[in-house]
Amino acid sequence: MGYGLSVTVDRPFDETLEGVRSALVDHGFGVLTEIDLAATLKAKIDVDIDPHVILGACRPALAQRAVAAEPSVGLLLPCNVVVRSAGEHRTIVEALDPDVMVSLTGNEGLAEVAADAGARLAATLASVVD
Amino acid sequence: MGYGLSVTVDRPFDETLEGVRSALVDHGFGVLTEIDLAATLKAKIDVDIDPHVILGACRPALAQRAVAAEPSVGLLLPCNVVVRSAGEHRTIVEALDPDVMVSLTGNEGLAEVAADAGARLAATLASVVD
Repeated sequence: MGYGLSVTVDRPFDETLEGVRSALVDHGFGVLTEIDLAATLKAKIDVDIDPHVILGACRPALAQRAVAAEPSVGLLLPCNVVVRSAGEHRTIVEALDPDVMVSLTGNEGLAEVAADAGARLAATLASVVD
Repeated sequence: MGYGLSVTVDRPFDETLEGVRSALVDHGFGVLTEIDLAATLKAKIDVDIDPHVILGACRPALAQRAVAAEPSVGLLLPCNVVVRSAGEHRTIVEALDPDVMVSLTGNEGLAEVAADAGARLAATLASVVD
């Protein structure tokens, strides 16, 4: 996947989601938003999908630098982390690759911020696998 | 801007934000998330920026089709709409171009969904200008 980082863990969805929330905080992110996509689709259009949550992770100091460098970058914030079920005891955890901020905007002024966020997200995902 | 649609309106921030929320609903979107970026940066790192809100717009039927076509596309959902002050009586409204979903994933199966969402977002922004 060219736009994200992905790991698969052999643990149930709920336990993994809890672990991802903690790991994000441990790696310096706040979780600003949380969308239960499965519950939303069930409630709004009565469609069933497997458990699927989109977390919006943000490190305010990085967000501030990003907006200063590229005023429209809020269109790409916060950095999404998806947790979705891949079976009873299997869960996929994915994070948007922050380098997408650089490639989409063409603004090299975002490169350091993206690298910092990317390293933190990679470490977050690695810690979830352990 | 290659990754978003943008309009500037000659109205104050608060009034524009209210108008954007209504216009999104009028054009078939729900607002699933709302981040007050200015308040967040003030609270977390004591930095002042101009009023700046990130709305997460979602049309559930499109989100469901998108996830069916590209299971990891939640990394790019919901579709962000940014409302930010550009002076006392001037506000910028921007929406992420949903074609980004197609270009980043390389998945043409998202093209119809992106076109539908893009047309709705363009109409939303046009209605805010009127």
